[in-house]
Amino acid sequence: MSFSTLFNLLGFLNLILAGSMGLPLLVNWIYGEPHARGFLLAIAATAFSGLFMMLIFRRSRRDLTHREGFAIVALGWISATFFGALPYLFTGSLASLTDACFEAASGFTTTGSTIFTEIQKHPYSVLFWRNLTQWLGGMGILLLSLAILPFLGVGGMQLYKAEVPGPTADKLRPRISQTARILWEVYILFSAAEVLTLLLGGMNLFDALCHTFSTMATGGFSPKNESIEFYRSPFLEYSITFFMFLAGANFALHYRFLKGNVKVLWRDTEFCFYTSVVLLATLFISLNLWLSIQKEFFQAFRLAIFQVVSILTTTGFATADFEQWPPFSQYLLLTLMFIGGCAGSTGGAIKCVRIYILLKQGFQELRKLIHPRAVLPVKLGGKVVSPDTLSGIWGLSFLYLFIFSMASLALCMLGSDFLTSVSAVAATLGNVGPGLGTVGPAENFAHLSVAAKWILMACMLLGRLEIYTLLVLLIPDFWKK
Amino acid sequence: MSFSTLFNLLGFLNLILAGSMGLPLLVNWIYGEPHARGFLLAIAATAFSGLFMMLIFRRSRRDLTHREGFAIVALGWISATFFGALPYLFTGSLASLTDACFEAASGFTTTGSTIFTEIQKHPYSVLFWRNLTQWLGGMGILLLSLAILPFLGVGGMQLYKAEVPGPTADKLRPRISQTARILWEVYILFSAAEVLTLLLGGMNLFDALCHTFSTMATGGFSPKNESIEFYRSPFLEYSITFFMFLAGANFALHYRFLKGNVKVLWRDTEFCFYTSVVLLATLFISLNLWLSIQKEFFQAFRLAIFQVVSILTTTGFATADFEQWPPFSQYLLLTLMFIGGCAGSTGGAIKCVRIYILLKQGFQELRKLIHPRAVLPVKLGGKVVSPDTLSGIWGLSFLYLFIFSMASLALCMLGSDFLTSVSAVAATLGNVGPGLGTVGPAENFAHLSVAAKWILMACMLLGRLEIYTLLVLLIPDFWKK
Repeated sequence: MSFSTLFNLLGFLNLILAGSMGLPLLVNWIYGEPHARGFLLAIAATAFSGLFMMLIFRRSRRDLTHREGFAIVALGWISATFFGALPYLFTGSLASLTDACFEAASGFTTTGSTIFTEIQKHPYSVLFWRNLTQWLGGMGILLLSLAILPFLGVGGMQLYKAEVPGPTADKLRPRISQTARILWEVYILFSAAEVLTLLLGGMNLFDALCHTFSTMATGGFSPKNESIEFYRSPFLEYSITFFMFLAGANFALHYRFLKGNVKVLWRDTEFCFYTSVVLLATLFISLNLWLSIQKEFFQAFRLAIFQVVSILTTTGFATADFEQWPPFSQYLLLTLMFIGGCAGSTGGAIKCVRIYILLKQGFQELRKLIHPRAVLPVKLGGKVVSPDTLSGIWGLSFLYLFIFSMASLALCMLGSDFLTSVSAVAATLGNVGPGLGTVGPAENFAHLSVAAKWILMACMLLGRLEIYTLLVLLIPDFWKK
Repeated sequence: MSFSTLFNLLGFLNLILAGSMGLPLLVNWIYGEPHARGFLLAIAATAFSGLFMMLIFRRSRRDLTHREGFAIVALGWISATFFGALPYLFTGSLASLTDACFEAASGFTTTGSTIFTEIQKHPYSVLFWRNLTQWLGGMGILLLSLAILPFLGVGGMQLYKAEVPGPTADKLRPRISQTARILWEVYILFSAAEVLTLLLGGMNLFDALCHTFSTMATGGFSPKNESIEFYRSPFLEYSITFFMFLAGANFALHYRFLKGNVKVLWRDTEFCFYTSVVLLATLFISLNLWLSIQKEFFQAFRLAIFQVVSILTTTGFATADFEQWPPFSQYLLLTLMFIGGCAGSTGGAIKCVRIYILLKQGFQELRKLIHPRAVLPVKLGGKVVSPDTLSGIWGLSFLYLFIFSMASLALCMLGSDFLTSVSAVAATLGNVGPGLGTVGPAENFAHLSVAAKWILMACMLLGRLEIYTLLVLLIPDFWKK
């Protein structure tokens, strides 16, 4: 483990972060808001600490080891949380360090749980920063460095593996910096398309940018208290549903699709599974709303598909206070929080491909009982899933549920009720955003205790980095030379 | 698949069942109750159908195949549920078929969820039958047949594997009928010891027998509305805690211990894990009760250890209405419902050994990230766990959670609230008994809809037969010649 390389790269990450804080400063200037000093202070603190680290520590010329890859990604995200909190603190939008870090962690991890109680009262520049953090976190801050840092070269594979979600990282090109650039290009292309669509639907530029940032990142922050419900526009709702659905699918797949390989979507087992989950859940919830609270069927369908896609992709936008829905719909949404988007998407949680493989293996065991001597490998899209990948999936899924139980227990101990604890942890660990109980879509996380907020922050980071990348730091062996 | 053998053995099972209905008939006669006719009718129906099946169908002379083993065990339990319901119906204790089957399924599967609203109003003979079903189901009805049926010979291994819970069946002796006899002997010995202890503590013989039946089976039916709280005796509470703890441990281990190998307990990884879970959970709940609802510490400890052991071993007796406890304690108890007792015990749920291996594998994956080329097998007590056993454990645990989610969703759809649905399914699938919400320890399952009751019955059988044994019947391949 070369600590010198580690700190050098963390320093570089701070420079990127400081640079990105220039955008809200611009917004501050456009709207003539009085917060330039706060942003300048945050930029200075972030940039100087970055420069300082880069000057003191030198990067070694050899490739990154996989341990260094994990350390850089994990510490990079923790450091981004702290430095990303500075604009909230220095502009006076959030007074306590805990709250500012919570909002920053919730932003970068694309969770979307918020401390802000009356969102529209905050300055435009701060709201812009809040949504920008989601966009940066969505495709990955480290992946962004890879895309603009060709000098990281082959060693970047370690960063890529550690940051991009999913059991296996899909290399689109031999050079990892090229792959990173392609993914970011697709991300930017889709973002541009969404901004145009939202403008077409009557949103102003500021709102369109902010909502695009959090849609494409499956984040869920909105500059409006009422989230997307504010606009009461079916066109905007369906557009955002469509873009959330895109953001929850594998970006490598999108790239191949855009390259003209149209069939790639229907041939991808995970994509088909993901689409089926969306359709089935929408059907059940539409029926439930239609039959039990007498909504008109098409209105029920519109509400259902928006909420299903929003929760399954772990975005967390809302067009309805689903806490008012019947228990069946609420419970189904809670279940979706554990499934999440596709591998290689910006969505969180366990991911469709893992759930699909787990289900397949579960039923495979039944066949084994009938044919005890048969060799029955688990296949995905015609290819055998290797035992190593399988045990990685089992390990991750079980740790996910284990951390979910322990964190919910801890929240219960800190005084939250059962539904709030369970759903707050499911929503942060899955990077969804709103939960149920006292942290529902019409409420926020401000009233929780300081300890509860730090536990939920840990959940967000564990969820975004798929547990292992963060947990591995706690093993003493990891730090040995 | 020889259907002839299948029905012949199912017929024999009915004869055993009819014979065991003789005991409540005896109780009816002792207490001079007017229900002899009901019991005689049930005995006649069960015995004649059994004789009929044995006369029509002939057993083939070859060994049982493993598929036949599964079919006999699964259908045997379903048939026991139906015939075991007859005494409730014919004595008029329960008027509907659904309710009678629910009570019988809850009995045989050692769940302990009840339909009876005012328990003490029911005749002694019916209450005796209710608790006897638990005792018969605890060590396994098929295992009982094996113990008294030496002619089943070597083929009985298939029945043993399909009925005894746990990832691997521990053969104590080369002949499976001897193993079955040993396990039943230990079971009877412990039961006798408990009856004596309870008599010593001041219980009358009827109550002592009934409570012993449901303690040793980790069942949880009580002939008293208030369960064990009725006696308000610390001696009885601690005694029952001790015997529940025994019943939740591996009976093969008990046998070796009784044979003089005292160290076997502390050398068994699962037993140590099981004991640690009991101690840790008791500590946390005692502290929680002491600090948050100001119970005196020793009283808090007494309540905590009883409830923890009762829920972890999936017995379900209560000395307190834990729905009045703080959310932390309730949530911890709900978590314990998923862990359950040891493999080879009479307890239900996922089982300690599986949870231990899952945890170990989860953390093993972390090590693999640090040493990607190292071969790191999962070990249990110094021995490597085979990949086949591992994938069986993963498969079962995931299907368990999958069925849990689907069944809770179904209960929500039928109109139960969130907490009731989740805890009712956790309590029946884990063969625990009482849940939370409207099915808590001070309430019962009578108010649920007919559909909900059948879903929960399916959960009980799935839980007792560790899912696969029952689910395998649904695969068309299973029935092919």
